[in-house]
Amino acid sequence: MSGTLDKLFATIAARKGADPSQSYTAKLLAGGVENCAKKFGEEATEAVIAAIQKDKTELAKESADVLYHLAVLWAASGLTPEDVYAVLQAREAQSGLEEKASRPKG
Amino acid sequence: MSGTLDKLFATIAARKGADPSQSYTAKLLAGGVENCAKKFGEEATEAVIAAIQKDKTELAKESADVLYHLAVLWAASGLTPEDVYAVLQAREAQSGLEEKASRPKG
Amino acid sequence: MSGTLDKLFATIAARKGADPSQSYTAKLLAGGVENCAKKFGEEATEAVIAAIQKDKTELAKESADVLYHLAVLWAASGLTPEDVYAVLQAREAQSGLEEKASRPKG
Amino acid sequence: MSGTLDKLFATIAARKGADPSQSYTAKLLAGGVENCAKKFGEEATEAVIAAIQKDKTELAKESADVLYHLAVLWAASGLTPEDVYAVLQAREAQSGLEEKASRPKG
Repeated sequence: MSGTLDKLFATIAARKGADPSQSYTAKLLAGGVENCAKKFGEEATEAVIAAIQKDKTELAKESADVLYHLAVLWAASGLTPEDVYAVLQAREAQSGLEEKASRPKG
Repeated sequence: MSGTLDKLFATIAARKGADPSQSYTAKLLAGGVENCAKKFGEEATEAVIAAIQKDKTELAKESADVLYHLAVLWAASGLTPEDVYAVLQAREAQSGLEEKASRPKG
Repeated sequence: MSGTLDKLFATIAARKGADPSQSYTAKLLAGGVENCAKKFGEEATEAVIAAIQKDKTELAKESADVLYHLAVLWAASGLTPEDVYAVLQAREAQSGLEEKASRPKG
Repeated sequence: MSGTLDKLFATIAARKGADPSQSYTAKLLAGGVENCAKKFGEEATEAVIAAIQKDKTELAKESADVLYHLAVLWAASGLTPEDVYAVLQAREAQSGLEEKASRPKG
């Protein structure tokens, strides 16, 4: 399932250093962090628009664009998906602890 | 690895209908699509800022926020992660075909 | 001074219904509200990036783009600059009243 | 008319260095460029949402917020409205020249 995302991230990482005239990803990366951040911001706005329009098909497409351009931004910034997963895992552990603490003692 | 994302999405889906006073996710969802789209847009801007500042630690945190709020937007919109993966898989198949077609015949 | 803005808004309003192949403004407007909103969102992100980069020349340019595309969005949405000025004036009157009320009576 | 904007910009400039506990503008400015850029980005997203929802009253309000927070971002960045007007005027002169050049000679 989310193996799809792992594959996406691996493909993007593999494009680093490829020929910008042959690969859209390589072209984005060659434009640097600023260029990748702009494109990510554009796609985020388009996802917002699709959501407000209640267009589920479009929201799925724009969300795929957001994920792709976010991963490109990571690659441009020297960040790996694992760096982001680590944040999510730490938060999940934290929220599990809080939930445990709030349980009534018996 | 990206089991982390599957877990995140499952947790968010499970919060649908939970008590908004007990869960931040439930509170966001109770605010409707517009509210979730605003929060997603905010986090996207913050990720852009962190990237431009070349702050990798901050970019990892903001990226985690983007993924979380994107998934909340999906839940608010009646979309599943699978709907988005399907788009990514179709694109990957397409791009594989194009790559195959461009290979020199021997 | 801000006669510059009045002129900008008047020029944009005058382009409504012009030939999209002759005028960039007419082309944007022909694309509808969604198209104009996307472009405005893009320029806003670019202004954010220029500000974070502390590039004043670029921020001035991107701010001009933001004002232009915001005014195009108004034209696409059937809004006039006066509708927006009315909001600003009402707020200014309100904030003047509050300031007056907070003054020590003597 | 757009004297409203001149007044807005003058008020914001006057708040620079005011007590952040007394003035929302001073509080924003005390948070620095990053803080002001985030708020501007938020308001831009909200204007996009109002436009897509075809809510003219809301779009007028959000546009007022965009103009206010853009002007705060200028103040935080050491930019004046005149810096932005200069860009707009240069473009207008340029576009006037192009229009003149494209006229049929007689």
